[in-house]
Amino acid sequence: MYIGIDIGAGSIKAGLVDSENMVLARAVAPTRAESTLDASLSELYGCVDELLGKAGATVHGLGVGVPGAVDHLQGIVYNPPNMPAWKNVPLASLLQDHTGIETRIDNDANCAALGEGHFGAGRGCDNFIVLTLGTGVGAGIVLNRRIHHGTRGFAGEFGHITIDMNGPRCNCGNSGCIEAYIGIHHLMRDALPLLASDADGLLNRRAIEDPDSLEPRDISLAAARGDVTCTAVLRRAGSLLGVAIASAANLLDIVTFIVGGGISAAGAVLFDGIRDSTAHRVLSVHRENLRILPAKLGNDAGILGAATLLR
Amino acid sequence: MYIGIDIGAGSIKAGLVDSENMVLARAVAPTRAESTLDASLSELYGCVDELLGKAGATVHGLGVGVPGAVDHLQGIVYNPPNMPAWKNVPLASLLQDHTGIETRIDNDANCAALGEGHFGAGRGCDNFIVLTLGTGVGAGIVLNRRIHHGTRGFAGEFGHITIDMNGPRCNCGNSGCIEAYIGIHHLMRDALPLLASDADGLLNRRAIEDPDSLEPRDISLAAARGDVTCTAVLRRAGSLLGVAIASAANLLDIVTFIVGGGISAAGAVLFDGIRDSTAHRVLSVHRENLRILPAKLGNDAGILGAATLLR
Repeated sequence: MYIGIDIGAGSIKAGLVDSENMVLARAVAPTRAESTLDASLSELYGCVDELLGKAGATVHGLGVGVPGAVDHLQGIVYNPPNMPAWKNVPLASLLQDHTGIETRIDNDANCAALGEGHFGAGRGCDNFIVLTLGTGVGAGIVLNRRIHHGTRGFAGEFGHITIDMNGPRCNCGNSGCIEAYIGIHHLMRDALPLLASDADGLLNRRAIEDPDSLEPRDISLAAARGDVTCTAVLRRAGSLLGVAIASAANLLDIVTFIVGGGISAAGAVLFDGIRDSTAHRVLSVHRENLRILPAKLGNDAGILGAATLLR
Repeated sequence: MYIGIDIGAGSIKAGLVDSENMVLARAVAPTRAESTLDASLSELYGCVDELLGKAGATVHGLGVGVPGAVDHLQGIVYNPPNMPAWKNVPLASLLQDHTGIETRIDNDANCAALGEGHFGAGRGCDNFIVLTLGTGVGAGIVLNRRIHHGTRGFAGEFGHITIDMNGPRCNCGNSGCIEAYIGIHHLMRDALPLLASDADGLLNRRAIEDPDSLEPRDISLAAARGDVTCTAVLRRAGSLLGVAIASAANLLDIVTFIVGGGISAAGAVLFDGIRDSTAHRVLSVHRENLRILPAKLGNDAGILGAATLLR
């Protein structure tokens, strides 16, 4: 029996996972990231205690996924985005002291990658990259079934692959990162003028009258209902993402890419865009083998992946 | 005692390497790639026999670097560029049968990477990429001191990282690969009009009267003598290479890049261009740590790296 925990800026999701990788029980709490560290920890301990109470068998390990950069070897959370009270938190030892159970932590994208890879869309695959679309474009890179952490644990910044060296400015300071096109805010910035000028579009009125209310989900829903502009926006996003995927596939000889989060919910339109683009751009040796798969597990990927950190 | 062999389209270079990684004896022969496979093998066996005759101690292993794609697990050379008679050659077993000594093969860029990494510019480093500039832009990727081969052994195609999705057409079919800018032929194609229009340039007359005689080495030499246009050409090449290096550093959290071959001989001008570009483009967490180093070992990198394949 293991406990896997997925800490986000909004909520803490924990699960009791058995040796067959089934989630037997769940606990959820607000992260209270806007409050103090102690407030967050008290919610976290609450979730863990609740699950330990339900375990009915020895829990052999506790794994936690956290946003942003972590020292996975020392178990320290550096400074997660949108969680200002968390600064260099020795989370693994805190949890270990609280529970007496061995604890490991890793970046949340890495945990999601392990979950999707071992139990979801990447099942049976040794080398793959799991992309999580959202504000940024995060990734977990799995090589020979293990997370590739890199020199200091910062690997997986897929969003900061350049696709056009003269492209738009990215938050990171570089120009033309893939994130500067398909990160949520960038995507919406580029989409709004198109929506506002498409008089027949389903989102035309909102784009003009209440643009701040529009989210990528609205674009996905409108595309699903046949909206031409929204379909084009998502197809273009897929096509741009394909440029970065081709670079990574060529560099690493990785041919399995699993895409989840945010606009991945748009489904076929986005995935068709990715596949068309990579088919044109990837080296011919990879063309037949490249697989672009939708993530399967949703939120459970993080819990299941975290629960494998001690195995 | 080990034997390391570096097979190129032009020549075979072999070395007897002791446990201290010193090259004790060398043998060189033409590859005779334009002739038959047997002609090449006979030259290869000649080199190996010569070194075995000089060994005076047990040779524990034989390692070979070969251009192009290889199956390093089965020891098969697929189809090296510019070596038409070599098709699916079971090189490891042929050499093993000939010598009775255990033999492994790998791609030449991978062997050079192992050599530079363990004994040259990357000494003491666990994670690094060795770039070899030439007709293409090849790479050996070393993660945790081992070559990263990828799903089917094709990893390291650094030249086919896109730096501008709308850029010039690459031989691979994609647009804007770094190779489509700084691969020898592409570099010269872009440089010639500049050289031909710079009336004060050292290469002006040759660029107009005998453009085909010009090589990247001429540009390096002219830059070293202060030629403004040649300096700009090399600086730009470095700057473009920096775009791809930043993408790889961000994706993989690799901060050591070793650059050798071709225009890397230009030295400071090229390296300044790379460093300025990466300093602007890489994520801030890497900025202080990124190291762009010139390769040190020259031709010996391939021999020394190949000699480590069995250790």
